[in-house]
Amino acid sequence: MTGGKRGEAPPTAAVLIIGNEILSGRTQDANLAYLGRELAQLGIRVVEARVVPDIEAEIVMAVNELRAKATYVFTTGGIGPTHDDITSESVAKAFGVPCTLHPEAHRILLDHYGPEKLNAARLRMAHTPEGASLVANPVSKAPGVRIGNVYILAGIPTIAQAMFQSLKHELSGGPPLLSATVTAYVPEGTIAAGLGRVQERHPALDIGSYPFQQQGRFGTQLVVRGTDAAELAQARDEIARLVQDLGQEFVLEG
Amino acid sequence: MTGGKRGEAPPTAAVLIIGNEILSGRTQDANLAYLGRELAQLGIRVVEARVVPDIEAEIVMAVNELRAKATYVFTTGGIGPTHDDITSESVAKAFGVPCTLHPEAHRILLDHYGPEKLNAARLRMAHTPEGASLVANPVSKAPGVRIGNVYILAGIPTIAQAMFQSLKHELSGGPPLLSATVTAYVPEGTIAAGLGRVQERHPALDIGSYPFQQQGRFGTQLVVRGTDAAELAQARDEIARLVQDLGQEFVLEG
Repeated sequence: MTGGKRGEAPPTAAVLIIGNEILSGRTQDANLAYLGRELAQLGIRVVEARVVPDIEAEIVMAVNELRAKATYVFTTGGIGPTHDDITSESVAKAFGVPCTLHPEAHRILLDHYGPEKLNAARLRMAHTPEGASLVANPVSKAPGVRIGNVYILAGIPTIAQAMFQSLKHELSGGPPLLSATVTAYVPEGTIAAGLGRVQERHPALDIGSYPFQQQGRFGTQLVVRGTDAAELAQARDEIARLVQDLGQEFVLEG
Repeated sequence: MTGGKRGEAPPTAAVLIIGNEILSGRTQDANLAYLGRELAQLGIRVVEARVVPDIEAEIVMAVNELRAKATYVFTTGGIGPTHDDITSESVAKAFGVPCTLHPEAHRILLDHYGPEKLNAARLRMAHTPEGASLVANPVSKAPGVRIGNVYILAGIPTIAQAMFQSLKHELSGGPPLLSATVTAYVPEGTIAAGLGRVQERHPALDIGSYPFQQQGRFGTQLVVRGTDAAELAQARDEIARLVQDLGQEFVLEG
């Protein structure tokens, strides 16, 4: 176990993706998958994600619902200098605090842009909900923000990822979420009954079944996830045996 | 205007992505972007998306919140034959109806698998919320489902896309959402103030600013979206002039 005390509920996270461009299909989100994988390594399970447009009332409502539900909330998007970048103001509204100039963020942007280029639009990026702390942005300097259990990250994946690496030491993780995968050219419908019985025997594990098609052949990836390495290995082996009993070969990972 | 009456609120959509594998980062969702683009062409704006795990209570709550909020709801994922495929049962619960064998779906699966291979697990795919109609699945036969304003689609993108093409004639669209893009090697912070004024002059349009980096140069895509082609072209030209006034070149699309 890394962090967290035995018997405590394991920590959870929610991801709030902010931006019209994700909902319109203009931009393919890549931050949820990244955060999901990184958080799993810290033993933090993502329990919900939402995508909302650049509308203050929508952001405020989603922030308040998600911060009540999950241990941590990560927002992505809407922290640039343009009129549609309203995440900090909206999170401030959600917390009922003003959005004010953060002296340290101001100094960072002044160092980066110089006094001539730090215009009013760029200065908006130094405004944070009152009481917030900063998250370092080694890529493009304008910092991320933390207030309460909410982290405000950039939308651009390289910047969001750098910010997450800057902040992850602050998170209290749980036992790491481990996974093992059995891949076989077995149709889901053939193995479903046996797989359901493996899940019933191991209620503490999550067993998922993900069909795929490769070079015209139908196969299934059978994924076991959980925190107990011994039980995980046992369930994995039970699934492998199901595949063998169907006269098929399989590949194990994890 | 295609469909919809003048003065009526334009139709909206919500997307509910169901599956632990999306939240854990194992699988990169591709359905939201596809649905966002397809729906925009029909004049239907996606106003929210959620990703929830394979947990009945979570699915029921999200379905009920989203079907009250949007004209249409599209769920993806959780309609296969395995124990973690619980979308149809959960949507039935959300509507307060039983989930029962649908005679037409039964016939489709019987034709496809034959009586020997249509085991209990596969037969689950022919169960729908009572009163539902079917959405044709030309790829792998097991149909999608429509009940009320909720469409239940597959998670595998090729199948979800084929199902959407099967059902889209049923949707009442609005005026198509048009877009125009001005791409320029101008940093966001330089053009932000002027861009904000363009947005103020055209409150009926959505103007978004999306920075990018290409071969070490920083640029911005300035995207105008709306339903009035003349106003869209005017705002696009105003943005192009902002770029010219900064002494930069630009590329127009749309």
